[in-house]
Order: sequence, then C-alpha cells, then structure tokens
Amino acid sequence: MNRTIDLNCDLGESFGAYRMGDDAGVLPFVTSANVACGAHAGDPSVMRRTVAAALEHGVAIGAHPGFPDLAGFGRREIRISPQEAYDLVLYQVGALAAFAVAAGTSLRHVKPHGALYNMACADAALAEPIARAVRDLDAGLILFGLPGSELQRAAEGAGLRFAREAFADRGYASDGSLVRRGTPGAMIEDPDEAVRRAVEIAVEGRTRTADGSELRLEADTLCIHGDRPDAALFARTLREGLERSGVRVAAPQSGG
Amino acid sequence: MNRTIDLNCDLGESFGAYRMGDDAGVLPFVTSANVACGAHAGDPSVMRRTVAAALEHGVAIGAHPGFPDLAGFGRREIRISPQEAYDLVLYQVGALAAFAVAAGTSLRHVKPHGALYNMACADAALAEPIARAVRDLDAGLILFGLPGSELQRAAEGAGLRFAREAFADRGYASDGSLVRRGTPGAMIEDPDEAVRRAVEIAVEGRTRTADGSELRLEADTLCIHGDRPDAALFARTLREGLERSGVRVAAPQSGG
Amino acid sequence: MNRTIDLNCDLGESFGAYRMGDDAGVLPFVTSANVACGAHAGDPSVMRRTVAAALEHGVAIGAHPGFPDLAGFGRREIRISPQEAYDLVLYQVGALAAFAVAAGTSLRHVKPHGALYNMACADAALAEPIARAVRDLDAGLILFGLPGSELQRAAEGAGLRFAREAFADRGYASDGSLVRRGTPGAMIEDPDEAVRRAVEIAVEGRTRTADGSELRLEADTLCIHGDRPDAALFARTLREGLERSGVRVAAPQSGG
Amino acid sequence: MNRTIDLNCDLGESFGAYRMGDDAGVLPFVTSANVACGAHAGDPSVMRRTVAAALEHGVAIGAHPGFPDLAGFGRREIRISPQEAYDLVLYQVGALAAFAVAAGTSLRHVKPHGALYNMACADAALAEPIARAVRDLDAGLILFGLPGSELQRAAEGAGLRFAREAFADRGYASDGSLVRRGTPGAMIEDPDEAVRRAVEIAVEGRTRTADGSELRLEADTLCIHGDRPDAALFARTLREGLERSGVRVAAPQSGG
Repeated sequence: MNRTIDLNCDLGESFGAYRMGDDAGVLPFVTSANVACGAHAGDPSVMRRTVAAALEHGVAIGAHPGFPDLAGFGRREIRISPQEAYDLVLYQVGALAAFAVAAGTSLRHVKPHGALYNMACADAALAEPIARAVRDLDAGLILFGLPGSELQRAAEGAGLRFAREAFADRGYASDGSLVRRGTPGAMIEDPDEAVRRAVEIAVEGRTRTADGSELRLEADTLCIHGDRPDAALFARTLREGLERSGVRVAAPQSGG
Repeated sequence: MNRTIDLNCDLGESFGAYRMGDDAGVLPFVTSANVACGAHAGDPSVMRRTVAAALEHGVAIGAHPGFPDLAGFGRREIRISPQEAYDLVLYQVGALAAFAVAAGTSLRHVKPHGALYNMACADAALAEPIARAVRDLDAGLILFGLPGSELQRAAEGAGLRFAREAFADRGYASDGSLVRRGTPGAMIEDPDEAVRRAVEIAVEGRTRTADGSELRLEADTLCIHGDRPDAALFARTLREGLERSGVRVAAPQSGG
Repeated sequence: MNRTIDLNCDLGESFGAYRMGDDAGVLPFVTSANVACGAHAGDPSVMRRTVAAALEHGVAIGAHPGFPDLAGFGRREIRISPQEAYDLVLYQVGALAAFAVAAGTSLRHVKPHGALYNMACADAALAEPIARAVRDLDAGLILFGLPGSELQRAAEGAGLRFAREAFADRGYASDGSLVRRGTPGAMIEDPDEAVRRAVEIAVEGRTRTADGSELRLEADTLCIHGDRPDAALFARTLREGLERSGVRVAAPQSGG
Repeated sequence: MNRTIDLNCDLGESFGAYRMGDDAGVLPFVTSANVACGAHAGDPSVMRRTVAAALEHGVAIGAHPGFPDLAGFGRREIRISPQEAYDLVLYQVGALAAFAVAAGTSLRHVKPHGALYNMACADAALAEPIARAVRDLDAGLILFGLPGSELQRAAEGAGLRFAREAFADRGYASDGSLVRRGTPGAMIEDPDEAVRRAVEIAVEGRTRTADGSELRLEADTLCIHGDRPDAALFARTLREGLERSGVRVAAPQSGG
C-alpha cells in the first residue's frame, strides 16, 4: 500500500479588522492552502500574510476565487454569465499570483469557493470559462473540484491537471453528492470517525454513504474545514491518522 | 533634433453598467494605456476588454492602481499605512497582469492613480512601498510619476526605470507643481495651446508657468486626460502636432 | 372616460463620478420617481440630489431597492434568504426615507429593482418579507409590481396599497409575462407605437401580445425606461399622448 | 451627591459571516448602544438583530455612522467634502432609524465612528454638516462627542442636545485630548483603575492626566470599548463600581 493524498484547507479568509479561521493552528498539518482572493473574503494584506505563512510551513499555495459577495461570504448563488466567470476568476487568481511572485514562489492550484464551486461543479457553462481562465494564466496550475463533476471535465478539456476532492467530515449520498448541510448525516463531527473515513477514502478509494451503502470515491485531495471550532486539532488528528495508516500526505505536483 | 515622447492616457475606467471616457476614440493616438484595476474604477470585464483594445492598437499596457474607493473615484485622500500601500498596489497590478498574460502580452508600466499618485509623489513613506511592490512583481516595469518627486526617488532606489510625466493640458506653478484644479490657469482648454506647450516640453524640456516664468521640465511621457469631453480630438491634435514638429511619439521601453 | 394613470421612471442611478440616465430630461414628464438607494446604483449624494429634483418637479418619490450588486447593476439573481430580503429592503428604503424627511417630504411608494423585482414577482417567499419590510417602516407606502404577481398578493396580505405596473415599451406574452429581452418583440422601439399601447392599457385595460392575441392588462402605473437613449423625448411623447387621449397622468395616492 | 452618567458601547459591528465584539455580554451593563450602520461595519441583518437585542435589554439605541471603508473599519481618515459628510451621515442614520421604527422604537442618539469622530471633533467644516444631517432627520436626537470639540459647537449651533463623552479606559493628555494609541499610558488596562477613574469623572468632573496633572472633565456619557477581550466583565465591573459609588447609570434623555 502506497497511497498519497493531499490535505487542503481554505485559509486567509480574514478581512480588515475581522478575523476568520485558525490559520496558524491549521497550517502545520495541511499540505495545500486555498487562499481567498479579496472577493468573497480576504484582502490584499491578509493575502500577503497568508502566502508568507503558507510558504513558511512548506504548504502549497493555491487561489480560492469566489463570488464578489463579502456580505454573503461567497455562499449565495449569483447568476453570472460565462464571460463574467472567466473574468472574475482570472482577476482573483492573478491578484494572488502577484503575492506569490513577490514572496519568491508561485501558485500550485486553484479551487473555486462556495457557491461558485458548487455551481461550476454542476454547470458546464460555468466550469468551462473557469478552467480556461486558469489555463490562460498558467497552464501548470491544478484545478480542484468534485470527482466526475463538470469542473473535472472542463479541466481536462483545457488540458489542466485536476485534483479530485473528497470531504472527510461530510456525509455522502449514494449518488456521490454531499448530504446537504442541516440534514442529519451532513457533518461528521467526531474526529476519529472522520479519520477512519479519510483513511478509507485514501487507501481504498471508497466510503460509506449516509444510507449505509458503499460508494466508490477516488480522491487526490481531502478538504478540511478551517471554520470548525476544533479545526487545528481536527487537522492534526487527520494528518496523524493518515500517516499512521501508511498514507503519505503531500500536495499534488504541478502539471506544468 | 531627435526627441521621443510617450502619450499616456487613463483608460478602462468604466464599471459594470457605467461608462466612463472615450477609450475607443483615444486609443488610436496614445502610446501608453493606464488601465484601471478594479479599485477606484474598472472591473474584471472592463479590464479584459481594455487590454484587448490596447493590444489591438499596439498601445503599451500599464496598470493604474488607485485607492479602493469607487464612490470617490480614487480622488479622495485615504490615510493608509506604507504596508497597505504595498499590498493594494501589488494586488491591483497583479490582477491586471493576469489579463495581459491571458491576452499573450505583458505589462509595461505602472502609474498610480489620483490621490494615491499625488500622495506618493509627495510622501516617501508611500512612494517607497509602491515602488517596492512594482519591483517585487516585475523589476522590468516602468514607474510613471512627476519628475523630481518622491516617486522618482523611490523608483530609482528600487532599481526601477522611471518615466517622468508632464501634463500638456495643465498649468504649472513656478515650483514645478500643478496649479490646483479650480484655480485660474489650472487647465489649458485650448488644444492648440496645449500642442504648443507639449512640443515645447518634448523638444526643449521647458514650459512657461502660470505666472509667466520659465520652468525646466524634462519629460518622458505626456498625460492626456481621457475624461475631457473632446478627449479623442485632443489626443489626435496633440499627436499630430508633436509628429509635425519632429517629435517621435512612442511608449518608453521596458527596463527589464 | 375618466381614467388616471401614473408614469414611473427609475431615477438617481448615477454613482460617484459615473453618470447614468437623463434624470433632468425625464422628470418634467413623469409622476413617480423610483430612486435608487445605494445598493444596485445610487449613492448618498445622488439620492439627496434626486430627491430634491423630484420634489422641485412635484414628482412623487419612491424607493427603488435592489440587490447589493453595483457591478451587476442589480440585474443578476442572487439567492438570498427571505430574512435577508426583509433586511436589505428595510435598510435601503429607510436610507432614502431620511433624505425625503430632510427635504421636508416623505416617500410615496416602493418598487423593487431589476432581478429583485422579477424574483419577488414570481416567488412568494421573497415577496412576503419585502411587503412586510415596507409595511413595518410605513404602512402608508404603496408597493409597485406586476399585476397578479406574488408581490401583489404579498402587498395585499400586508395591508399595503398596491399599484399594478405595466410597460408601454415592452412586449407581452400571452400569459401576461414580458417577452424576454433579446427576443424579437421584447422592446417597442417606436415611441408612437408605445403611446398607442399605453393609451390602450390606460383606457381599455388591455394590450396586444407579441403573438397577436389580446391580453387583459389593468394597470395603475406605466414604467418608462430612463436608460433609453431617447428617454426624455419618449417620456414627453408618452405623457402628451396619454393626456391627448383624455387620460389623467398622476401619481397614485398614498394608502396611509 | 446625585450624579447620573450614561455608559455607551459600540455594538453591531459584525458583518456577514464575520463576528466582532461580545454584544450579548456587554448589553446587560450599558445604557446606550452605538449601532454600526453598514458602512465601516455592520450589515442590514446585523443591524436588525442589534436593535432587537438592545430593545430587549432596555438599552437606548443610537446610530454609529462611519466612513464607507469596511476594509479599514472606518479608522482611516478619508478626505471627504462637507456635503459628502452630510450625505453619508443622513444615509446611515436613516437606514438604522428604519430598523428602530420596524421594531417599534426610535433612535435616541448619534455618535460618529472612528476617524469620522476624530476628524469631526477637530474640524468645524465636518462637524457642522454632520450635526445638520442629524437635525434634519430628527431634531430630538442627541449627538455624542468630545467635550469642547467642534462637534459640540456644531450640535449647539444646530439646536441639538449634546452628550459629552469621556473614556474610562483611555489616558488623557493635559490638553484634554486622548493619549494616542500605541503610546505609554494610552490604555487603562486594569478594570479597577478604570472604575476609579470613571467614578472620579462621573462624581467630581475631573481626571488625572498621563503626566499626573489634574484635568477638568465633565461628561454625560462614558465609552466602553466593546472590542476589549474582557469587554463584558469590564462593562459589568464599571457599572457596578459606578452604582456602588452612588452614581446613577442611565441613558441621556431625548431633547425632542
């Protein structure tokens, strides 16, 4: 057994005087940082500090573009055109890329945020321009998204590497979708249970759904929610659990 | 006589449904486009279109970062820290750079906008981080600013090429500063008079001040205000007048 | 024959240095002004000036709350919760009401803008909190919306007066909905044709649909699009045409 | 001895998903709530909830208008015109007033926030339009500010009641100004010392400055900083200390 998996986490979601998440607590345990780009969260100063902190911990840096809706934290669906999707992703990824360059590094991946992620996974008309924006900026960037989603198809169509993302702390339905937040079984609160599931995903490429059936689930990266109250402990437990099970935890390698 | 001068203009200042300036009318006559970066003006879609239009006309593309104050169009002074100045300039220039890269080109220069320009010309504590942000992103970029200003000193300190900017349609005081808008002599409304002054600046490196004295004024680039009602005609008149006087009109060459 | 109808127009949609619409040209001919409230368009200074201009022309002043999406001019659907709808409408109407009070007058009506209008007309879950927000601020305010829409039902449920709105320059489908913009027959460009239709709506309470059938259409207010290039002339033609046909043009009276 | 003093605190400074301050912890102990109005902090939903919470605790509700600079939390000076100051204050106070009305209550006071407060206290050209905006909306509102400031003069000139504000947890210079944050003696960290000072201000109308001299300081209201880590405990200690010393703690009465 020789599986490798990435642990990614949304970081840099503070804004001005507002603090969000426990970036310092999580960074020692994850391997990919999805850094907010000033639209749904983050601001230029937070971006600079987050890039510096990720770099210090050897964590791969990625852009986390979202809807320009700070009030809704990028979680509200906004009906934008494909061209607008292209433009807002290119803008945000470019802005973060500048902080990476200034820090002497470069971006490794892009993961759309919140409602934009969900909409792009389900809608080719959004997924395609997003993948194209990423490719037009840097064809070596890796796009993160749900396995089998429109985002995966668009990434492949654009010639981008794609990292299939799974969630250790979220319940799955038998069609591979996530159980909607607020529904029983949506969140896996118990860290030990989450570790067990993460190992199963990483090692065996499958998970158990909320209704008890088995789901094939091959993943390259596992998402940790940084806004859990116990995010740092959860990240540490997950990483140690994976490594104890012989899984190597590492960021995906650039396709560039 | 073999003088060369650049004609620069602020472009891409529309926002969403709002139109500003006559970009299409001005682009055939200028050689450098200062493109708004989504803070004081512009949005991602406007940025993409402006980069494409400048590219089509062979006009050098530069970033025009400003205060994040759309309501004030970047013209209101905001007391930011040097670190904030670094961060907001890096963010905005990076965002525009992405559109340039996606269009197969790259940025040539950076010119701070409005109140940020004025404050940085006068205050080393702002000029220095701005120059450093530009340098940290791309040491080949040219910084635009007033001759003899703190911005010039900062550019030189950072090892950046600096383009000294003069204004053909603004009156000068004897200390080399611009006559404040709203004061008699602040604006040169007559295009022919502006051409005469532009040629004098380009060819002889001097101008006549509002109080009639002579001012030494060596410039590498002349600014055209795109929000004049007659901006396109003014640009054309100025360009033709300069060329008729034997001045070559061309964008400054990258220091990279 | 003794019909009365209101002519309403969206006004005060400028923002900062950006100009939108021909408010001064339209105001002499309309009877109700829907004033943008600083979310999809407008800013505090524009609001003050628009209230003053409407007051000067004896035009009834109403609030025109929209999505907080200046970049999309309030035309992009945003999936907000009913509670968020309540809050954003109350906020915006309250802000405009302050300018009315300071000018010695008061608001007469509220008309949701753009995507919020369309969504609320179709969705009771949005219409209800919008009507409630208006009622909680001032039960004498009149709500504007499509006849037979959820907005009408919600207004009546909240005990508000409702003004049924029709469009003289838009084509109707046989189910009473508007022909989608961009489709043939969506816009009535010819002012004379629009006048003919406006009179038919005002006097006979019916119109002819895009496919030639007759549609019952009783309306209390007709909307004029202020962003037509010929908005002022159109407004004048419409008003004169209505009055020539014996229709009285006047704002609806408060239910208070 | 029969002194009365108000305890005021900035509340409702959360925004969207971002939490700020311990409103629930502080509300039981203060008598006036300065509620952010959606510009420097707060959003429509936060405003509604804050008004409801203040009402439940019998705390007087006031508006806390600030610069439209969420990124800078209203703490950065922005050079606005007097007319812009009038407009932004009227807008924000009006928006909050709507939530008060909808909750069946009304506003009691207005206290400018952050840099706007500091600038208006020192500059008559800003203080005057702010006082006028408040008066034009509701002449019964009480304006809060530094004793002897331009804000006091402007309030009196506009015929508004004025509440003189003092700070129990800030050091004073001998000219009555606050010791600048970051300077030794700027903050009184020890709650017991702050209580001692508060009682001295409330009962004897004087305080001891950072350099040991005595300063005459008559105050109607004491500000508690809600962003102290121990804000709730501090508020409780202060209130209990004042009451134990025979000071009645109560909101100022409307001038209306």
